[in-house]
This record gives sequence, C-alpha cells and structure tokens, in this order.
Amino acid sequence: MNTVIETILNHRSVRSFEDRRLTKEQIEQIVSSAQAASTSSFIQAYSIIGVDDPDKKKKLSELAGNQSYVEENGHFFVFCADLYRHELIGRMENKDVEETLESTEKFMVALIDASLAAQNAAIAAESMGLGICYIGGIRNHLEEVCNLLKTPKRVIPLFGIAVGYPSKIVDQKPRLPLQHVYHENEYQQNEEEYINQLNEYNKTISEYYEARTAGQRSDTWTNQMGNMLERKTRMYMKEFVEGVNFNKR
Amino acid sequence: MNTVIETILNHRSVRSFEDRRLTKEQIEQIVSSAQAASTSSFIQAYSIIGVDDPDKKKKLSELAGNQSYVEENGHFFVFCADLYRHELIGRMENKDVEETLESTEKFMVALIDASLAAQNAAIAAESMGLGICYIGGIRNHLEEVCNLLKTPKRVIPLFGIAVGYPSKIVDQKPRLPLQHVYHENEYQQNEEEYINQLNEYNKTISEYYEARTAGQRSDTWTNQMGNMLERKTRMYMKEFVEGVNFNKR
Repeated sequence: MNTVIETILNHRSVRSFEDRRLTKEQIEQIVSSAQAASTSSFIQAYSIIGVDDPDKKKKLSELAGNQSYVEENGHFFVFCADLYRHELIGRMENKDVEETLESTEKFMVALIDASLAAQNAAIAAESMGLGICYIGGIRNHLEEVCNLLKTPKRVIPLFGIAVGYPSKIVDQKPRLPLQHVYHENEYQQNEEEYINQLNEYNKTISEYYEARTAGQRSDTWTNQMGNMLERKTRMYMKEFVEGVNFNKR
Repeated sequence: MNTVIETILNHRSVRSFEDRRLTKEQIEQIVSSAQAASTSSFIQAYSIIGVDDPDKKKKLSELAGNQSYVEENGHFFVFCADLYRHELIGRMENKDVEETLESTEKFMVALIDASLAAQNAAIAAESMGLGICYIGGIRNHLEEVCNLLKTPKRVIPLFGIAVGYPSKIVDQKPRLPLQHVYHENEYQQNEEEYINQLNEYNKTISEYYEARTAGQRSDTWTNQMGNMLERKTRMYMKEFVEGVNFNKR
C-alpha cells in the first residue's frame, strides 16, 4: 500500500481542533489541489469561499446547528455549486445559455464538480497532517448562509469543510461491506441477500458503538438510518434551489 | 510538497490505455479507497458497478457517444447515486421514509456522496500509476444505461471512470486563476473584475491550445463554454431523475 492510499484509508472526521490558523501557503495548496480535480467538459462549475472572519464563523456555526467546530478550527472552506460565471460568459459571448444553466443536468454537473474538488481538498489537507470535517449543516438555513456569504443567484453553498490541527482523534467508523457497495457487471438486485448483508453490517456497527461508548450506546445502522430518514428535514430545498435558478427544467 | 499533493496536482485525464486488465486486488484497493470518503450523516448513498464484460463495455461506449476508451481500458467503474438500500431499510425498520428519499435534499446528498467516493477512487488509482478518465457521457442515454446495468429505481448511474495503464499522456489543462475560484470571507461579486480575470484566463487557454495543436486550434475558454452552453443537451434529465424517484419534492 502506498502513502496516498494510506492517507485515504486513514480518514476519519475530526471535530476538535487546536487554536491555530492555517497559513496562506497551506490554504493555497488546498485550493490548488481542489482545482486539479476533473471537471465535466472543463466547465469548472464551482467556487470556494474561505471563511476566517470570527463573526462570520460564529454565525455559520449557529446556522449549522451550533456545531462548535464550525467556529473553532484552522480555516473553514465553503464549497459552492457555481454557474454565475457561466451566466456572465453568456453575456460576454452573446449566447443564450439560460435554459442550459437552469437544467437539472447542469445542477448535477455543478454538484459533482464541486464535490470532486472538495474531496481533493480534503485529501490534500489530511496529507499535511491536518484533520477535516465535512459540514452539511450549512444546508439547514441556506438563505441565511447565502446572505452571510453574499452569494449571487446561480451559486449554492453545498457544504463546508472545517480544517485544522486535530486536538482529538476518534476511531474510524466501519463502512458497508465491500460486496454490498460494489457490483460486478450489473446491479445485484437480490433483496434477500441485500438484507442479509445489512444484518451482518448491523452487528459490526453495534459492536463499534458499544466499544466506543463503553456499552452506553446500542444501535444498528439500519435503525439509525430508519430514524434519520423518517424525519423530514430540509424539505425546502427544491424550492430554494429553483429560486436561485438551478434545477428548474 | 508531499507525495499525496504531488499525485493530486499531477492529474490529467487519460484517454488511451494499454490492453491490460486491473487485478482483483487493485480493484478492491480502489473500491476500499472510495468507501473511506466522508458520507453525509453516515448515509453511504452510492453504489459502484465495475464493468469488465466486453459486450457491456462496448454497449456503454456506444451509449456514451462512441468514446473508445470506455471500451478499451483496464476496468470501467460506474458510480451511482443509490437510495435503493434505504428504501429496503424503511421496510426492514417499518419507517415511512418515502418523502425523505424523494426530496431534492437527498438527491443532492446522494450526488455528493457518490462524487466524494469517486474522487477517492480516482486518486487511489492514480497513486498506483494508473490513469483515469471521468465519463459523463453515460448520462446521454440513462434509460439504456440503467437497463444494461439492471439498476432498480432509486439508483442513478452518474458517471463512469475508465481506469487503466496509460499508453499516452497528454498535457494538463490550465485551470481558472485561483483568485477567480477562491473567495475570502464572502463572494467577490465584482462583475468587471470577474470579466477581466476571464479575459486573462482566455489568453492562457489560447496559448495552451495553440502549443498543443501546433497552431491548429485557436480557442478561448469563454468561447468554448458559450458554444457548449448554447446547445441544449440532456434536457430529459429532470423527467428522468423524477421517474426513478429522485428530486420529486
């Protein structure tokens, strides 16, 4: 196993950081790494907002559900789907690009582009000995986040990444069995086998929680997922993304 | 600069591969790397289909617009947004999860999850000396791709990654200037400066194409983007994703 794969396999979310800011050089290496990712037809449909301002970080932390590590970290990156520059390009080049920009296809392209870039940033940061945590919680209140970060229409802040020097390292969470996620040549739609695999995985996860909490937490993955998915959260999203001119047609 | 960041910054798409298949061990390292990526609230909302069957690869290549490297490579991975297993979980746990699974929010979660996993896979493959190319072309005809790969509802094949031993290495395409993509504390919505940056970048891209094609191709980035975005492609996507029960509410 090479060092790159070691770095990738060693990932765990870090939620507790030292009080130490990233340097300009570190930030630039992380952003350059993000930009090196593949991009659909060279479209580069994303932007990154680095948040360092203490008031803004505090506000973001509140909006994300009072997660302290959104405020207390070495640097906070917000990854955005971005077709605003492509709207400008339409005007510069005198081309009618509106229908395309508002299509579900380009919504997908922008989400995928931003995510590929973000994962490069995450791996780059981890390779420097930094810890990271993705923050989907910024999608709890996107209108307020957009106001705070002054994003124009055709830009959606998708998630944050808190980066910094780890002050506490936790265990890795075991993933679904490889055979459950990886299919050969076609999707193995065998419901019985699928449920058997999930039951097996439930045992792994129960053991993980029990060991981690010294017997305090007893939970399975399917129970955790069932409870989470039963709650209807962020149901405003469809209207919101259409309101900023994505995913409309 | 460490080896991980070197690997990341050295990325270029490879579209020509030796006739040499990946080993089972290589495939498993790539898939395990994908699974190590962060996942929103531990939801693991993706699947990977590894395609090795020559007939299926040939068919996929045709569907993706006759891209030979979809057929001729060491292994072809299809990354899918997947909430099918979460539908099963709803039944296993007797929870009503339908509204959540059909929300735009969970459509975004599944796209982001699949993309983070894919980029880990891409970096892992590149770290082994393999080349990769993302294939968005499978979205040209998704219904046929779904039939070929036998995916159930709540699964969307998003893109492929062709992986293999490179037989031809091309130059890297220069990315947008860092300051154009990276904003500090808030989105720098200064249209004039934005357009200046795009004009600067156009010069870089013109020089790149001229050097690469010995003067044969003269193009700018904004012209290329304007032409691409004027064409209305994959406009069936909204209806398609709703038809497989994503992005409906």
